[in-house]
Amino acid sequence: VSFSFGSNLRVTIFGQSHSEAIGAVIDGLPAGEKLDFGRIEAFMRRRAPGQSSVSTARKEPDKPRVLSGLVDGVTCGSPVCVIIENTDVRSADYEAMKRVPRPAHADFPAFVKYGGFNDVRGGGHFSARLTAPLCFAGAAALQLLEKRGVNVAARVKSVAGIEDCPIDFVNPDFAALKAAALSDIPVISEEKRQAIRAAISLAKQKGDSVGGVVECFAAGLPAGLGEPIFDGIENRLAAAVFGIPAVRGIEFGAGFAAAEMRGSEHNDAFYMGGPDARTVMTATNNHGGVLGGLTSGMPLVFRAAFKPTASIAQAQRSVDLISETDAELQIHGRHDPCVVPRAAPCVEAVTALVLLDFLLVGK
Amino acid sequence: VSFSFGSNLRVTIFGQSHSEAIGAVIDGLPAGEKLDFGRIEAFMRRRAPGQSSVSTARKEPDKPRVLSGLVDGVTCGSPVCVIIENTDVRSADYEAMKRVPRPAHADFPAFVKYGGFNDVRGGGHFSARLTAPLCFAGAAALQLLEKRGVNVAARVKSVAGIEDCPIDFVNPDFAALKAAALSDIPVISEEKRQAIRAAISLAKQKGDSVGGVVECFAAGLPAGLGEPIFDGIENRLAAAVFGIPAVRGIEFGAGFAAAEMRGSEHNDAFYMGGPDARTVMTATNNHGGVLGGLTSGMPLVFRAAFKPTASIAQAQRSVDLISETDAELQIHGRHDPCVVPRAAPCVEAVTALVLLDFLLVGK
Amino acid sequence: VSFSFGSNLRVTIFGQSHSEAIGAVIDGLPAGEKLDFGRIEAFMRRRAPGQSSVSTARKEPDKPRVLSGLVDGVTCGSPVCVIIENTDVRSADYEAMKRVPRPAHADFPAFVKYGGFNDVRGGGHFSARLTAPLCFAGAAALQLLEKRGVNVAARVKSVAGIEDCPIDFVNPDFAALKAAALSDIPVISEEKRQAIRAAISLAKQKGDSVGGVVECFAAGLPAGLGEPIFDGIENRLAAAVFGIPAVRGIEFGAGFAAAEMRGSEHNDAFYMGGPDARTVMTATNNHGGVLGGLTSGMPLVFRAAFKPTASIAQAQRSVDLISETDAELQIHGRHDPCVVPRAAPCVEAVTALVLLDFLLVGK
Amino acid sequence: VSFSFGSNLRVTIFGQSHSEAIGAVIDGLPAGEKLDFGRIEAFMRRRAPGQSSVSTARKEPDKPRVLSGLVDGVTCGSPVCVIIENTDVRSADYEAMKRVPRPAHADFPAFVKYGGFNDVRGGGHFSARLTAPLCFAGAAALQLLEKRGVNVAARVKSVAGIEDCPIDFVNPDFAALKAAALSDIPVISEEKRQAIRAAISLAKQKGDSVGGVVECFAAGLPAGLGEPIFDGIENRLAAAVFGIPAVRGIEFGAGFAAAEMRGSEHNDAFYMGGPDARTVMTATNNHGGVLGGLTSGMPLVFRAAFKPTASIAQAQRSVDLISETDAELQIHGRHDPCVVPRAAPCVEAVTALVLLDFLLVGK
Repeated sequence: VSFSFGSNLRVTIFGQSHSEAIGAVIDGLPAGEKLDFGRIEAFMRRRAPGQSSVSTARKEPDKPRVLSGLVDGVTCGSPVCVIIENTDVRSADYEAMKRVPRPAHADFPAFVKYGGFNDVRGGGHFSARLTAPLCFAGAAALQLLEKRGVNVAARVKSVAGIEDCPIDFVNPDFAALKAAALSDIPVISEEKRQAIRAAISLAKQKGDSVGGVVECFAAGLPAGLGEPIFDGIENRLAAAVFGIPAVRGIEFGAGFAAAEMRGSEHNDAFYMGGPDARTVMTATNNHGGVLGGLTSGMPLVFRAAFKPTASIAQAQRSVDLISETDAELQIHGRHDPCVVPRAAPCVEAVTALVLLDFLLVGK
Repeated sequence: VSFSFGSNLRVTIFGQSHSEAIGAVIDGLPAGEKLDFGRIEAFMRRRAPGQSSVSTARKEPDKPRVLSGLVDGVTCGSPVCVIIENTDVRSADYEAMKRVPRPAHADFPAFVKYGGFNDVRGGGHFSARLTAPLCFAGAAALQLLEKRGVNVAARVKSVAGIEDCPIDFVNPDFAALKAAALSDIPVISEEKRQAIRAAISLAKQKGDSVGGVVECFAAGLPAGLGEPIFDGIENRLAAAVFGIPAVRGIEFGAGFAAAEMRGSEHNDAFYMGGPDARTVMTATNNHGGVLGGLTSGMPLVFRAAFKPTASIAQAQRSVDLISETDAELQIHGRHDPCVVPRAAPCVEAVTALVLLDFLLVGK
Repeated sequence: VSFSFGSNLRVTIFGQSHSEAIGAVIDGLPAGEKLDFGRIEAFMRRRAPGQSSVSTARKEPDKPRVLSGLVDGVTCGSPVCVIIENTDVRSADYEAMKRVPRPAHADFPAFVKYGGFNDVRGGGHFSARLTAPLCFAGAAALQLLEKRGVNVAARVKSVAGIEDCPIDFVNPDFAALKAAALSDIPVISEEKRQAIRAAISLAKQKGDSVGGVVECFAAGLPAGLGEPIFDGIENRLAAAVFGIPAVRGIEFGAGFAAAEMRGSEHNDAFYMGGPDARTVMTATNNHGGVLGGLTSGMPLVFRAAFKPTASIAQAQRSVDLISETDAELQIHGRHDPCVVPRAAPCVEAVTALVLLDFLLVGK
Repeated sequence: VSFSFGSNLRVTIFGQSHSEAIGAVIDGLPAGEKLDFGRIEAFMRRRAPGQSSVSTARKEPDKPRVLSGLVDGVTCGSPVCVIIENTDVRSADYEAMKRVPRPAHADFPAFVKYGGFNDVRGGGHFSARLTAPLCFAGAAALQLLEKRGVNVAARVKSVAGIEDCPIDFVNPDFAALKAAALSDIPVISEEKRQAIRAAISLAKQKGDSVGGVVECFAAGLPAGLGEPIFDGIENRLAAAVFGIPAVRGIEFGAGFAAAEMRGSEHNDAFYMGGPDARTVMTATNNHGGVLGGLTSGMPLVFRAAFKPTASIAQAQRSVDLISETDAELQIHGRHDPCVVPRAAPCVEAVTALVLLDFLLVGK
């Protein structure tokens, strides 16, 4: 039972890449919230495949259908169930997977765990396709956060080692982040976007893939939100973010770089700031807005590392699980040479869901 | 309610730095397990302060007293409650904290969250002192894992940018790791140990502090352990590891470096290995033993980044929460210039608890 | 977030009486289980309305559509999502409810909790209609239990004070129980069935309703299943059974009657029985198969009390929530004069789900 | 992991009858609450043994020692851990239990579940002694509820079939309930108290025991508290109340009697009442203050059935688990001939904890 997360706001996703439909049940949305479906669908398009030359050609309408939880588009206190029918399914591409696990995919451990009964078509329930209903849920959460004065935005920080321009942790430029989100590669620098697009194209040409880092910001959170020790902002965000396929690491504020800093460098000095000089603020934001599991009132900043797409066109060494011999694997079908651009809205989505969950404690 | 973690094996910690006692309740240990207290206490000494020139002078016997859950040293199916009395308490050192929050500590958000009622003595329940009962629990879990053929060991990978020698992810040298664990700075290279000791001493001299990275390995896990999506090995380990104070990031296998690799480089090829050439193995271990939330049977590898100790002797800029003005803060008292050596057993402890939890599913 | 229950096997239901669809997500079914849909639908018909003269005339095909979790009718380890489209919807019947809460319904507290935004059509998410997907889930669980040697059956024990014949708690006659389940009023005695049918018809004639008691049995459970104190067989069954609308009480074994017995009467003596005289059994079964949260190996026996249907045709006194004045309420539409016959499969369903959850601990 | 319950307020109990200590960890009490220890200890005395001629002679100071969570008697946001040392322990009485399970106790299924490793001294962790720390927690919760305008009181409704006088469900007389709580048998009628005392004495004389029913009331709860379906007031109260040893049933409002009522009789009519005639009230309270999992604002009323004490002095038939033969059992030692009087504060305690948990949602 690991298809759910959240406490006051609990999201359960279901489906496999090639099941009849995929979807989500969102339990805990307060009653009386009007949802803007145009904006939800626009958000989902940021994640959808087939948007540009750099992503997979599989085109799906991904039209969400809400079965419950709304009356005239307004939440009614009952769980919102949304489904997305699976239409563009070509199972033939995936026959080989039944015997020969794809390197860097969950095929092999899944074979062991499920005794060979798991759905191998398109990766089954390990498919990144399950992030589509997650993005629906996240898009709804983003609207509720916005009404509560909280802004969340993620960008691609780097792909294949090519870094977008730095962002001020103390005053993240949300306008720039939201503009970036509209492009095929959500970076701020147009120059870097072109360099990244070229790197992705090159990898595609070579039958290879590249990874990258997504950086996420949230502003407008009150200080003191969260919980200490095992159920704080970092614990829950980390647990949720690792629910997105291909994530290999997460770091807050200065992150791993903090390990190389001295305390006198890393500690963010407090001062009285804000319009009336009575708001506790920090001059720098190495702590990324969270101290001991609790928000400080400064912007939340974290990064998630995504590995290069596991499915590549080059031949790879694998094994045949039935004959128990070594085997060569040639993956056919359509695959993103880089998932990072499409991962940015997924990170935004889970962040919104986790933060709204914390905020709803005091509903 | 965030002082607990775990599902089949649930650990709840309690106490504050200066409360009468601190402790843990460990619910879910199978009945009939003999615990070796000599080894538990030896493990706890690795975390205890006052072990060397590089850690705080506060000396505590930290003698664990088990109140329940054992009959003649054998688990009986009832929760094990262990307490550690707090004896060496000097509250006077901490008076200033009531008004002036320490940078990079949870003092300020805790003040907001608890309305000023939280225990500020020694950092209250945010104190790293609460890792003592956590290490008791982890030491017990390590013994149960060992009986089940699972080895867990953590080392300091770097302090202040000084890196210990690399370790083979495919065949981690547990003998070397366990030997390292006995020294004041658990690195493998004696040369690096001296360099790190010097760096810590220098920081201490300057009233400053340094951070570092802990790397943890686990071998002997069956393939297919874990859960997909939101409750897998990475999700739960990440959530638990962020429960250790000062952690700023976590990464599995190649981690953030994976973001700069190509798929053809990063994907670990499968082959049939082992004594009978019928065990599925990988030639490299960039995936760190975990694919899609499930173990692959290869060694689990992850790293956690620790920030430099927040409490430093140098004067710092802060605020006075009562007068709502800027203030200077001078922290007195005893503080580790580097928590990383003592953090290694803490990482080992939570890792053992999380892995045992997963293994007990099929008890 | 209260639309879910279960731990290793977790069922989440969603929908409102008049939403587009209702459904359930069943997470935790082991992979590799073939489901017999003919039997699932037969089970669901036992709960479905419109089966006889004694239940509401609303006829719904209630055809379940499985969206995920199966490959060729076999579970694949991914959650099974099932939906049932809502077709026979006459909203006009329910207009009055917006202002005037129905006595003995959740209308009034729901109005307060949801600020008037809850779906009032047909009772919204408080509707007994949500037991349809619950019965789908329960029917699947019953099949898995059967394969594991566990039999579950519920009958109507009484309606309007008319009691069915007693059943031997030590050796419940499952054949008789299963035969009873096929009739419109699942009692064993044909004489009592007619008397109950007459009582229900009389109530209907008078625009009134009647309640009753459902008794549930489970045999084939191993001894020692369950958990002590707060998470045992009784705790979890009770929590789940109160999830069925109209339940007002639950009792195990001798139940409330035990309160009037002496210990020497109530205590069930142990003896060595079974084919080889080496199975611990009890000569009587006042304990209803459960001792201290754990199964004893004897048949599980419990009863749930159902109140008379809240919706009656007679005029009732209520209030107008908008004008804050007293009001008279006349409920129109179709309503069961007695829910107890249709409640029996619901009790069976949740019992199966709770028991399977416990059994899957050691999967 | 079944020694905990609660969501926003989570109580974990630990210990065995004869372990070094028993205790509880209470996580989630809001910071800033002053606890009155005199009243907590007075409450605990209501549960303590040895208070009168009708209860066991085992006398324990049961002095609670708080280890954490308080600063100067005020909650600080960290879990409150309380322990009670076990002092008056006579293990010799219990030797026989290792082989010969006591009828109506958990001895036999516990032997199976724990493979014979469970602590059999005094019933181990199944002992009613674990309700002592539960009563500490409940007493603290009662104080917080009182400050929030909520009154909780339980009485013995019947023992051995002897019924105390009825109480008005619409306006329960809390003064009478609280006066009753001070006597050895918490009933309102002095005449019935004497009759019950005589019945208990008679049972004791005969080496037998009697059971009874506890009835609990809570007033001052706002309407709309709770959750629908699986996590409402009834679900959670039932799950928690079954955590008290010897409970065999629970019923709300009219309870099992509702099953014999007609809807027109059972439905509680709404009217506008209260000082300003703008409060929604019901003229009768068959619903016991809860509708569909949510509070109605009327007093909460429920009853729990307690079986007769399992341990009786008369010889009983049992089995020898080692030799696998029938055996006679003679229980020695001190045992209450009736637990019901001491169970009343336990019911009050868990009720207070569950209700406070619900109220803290909106803290």
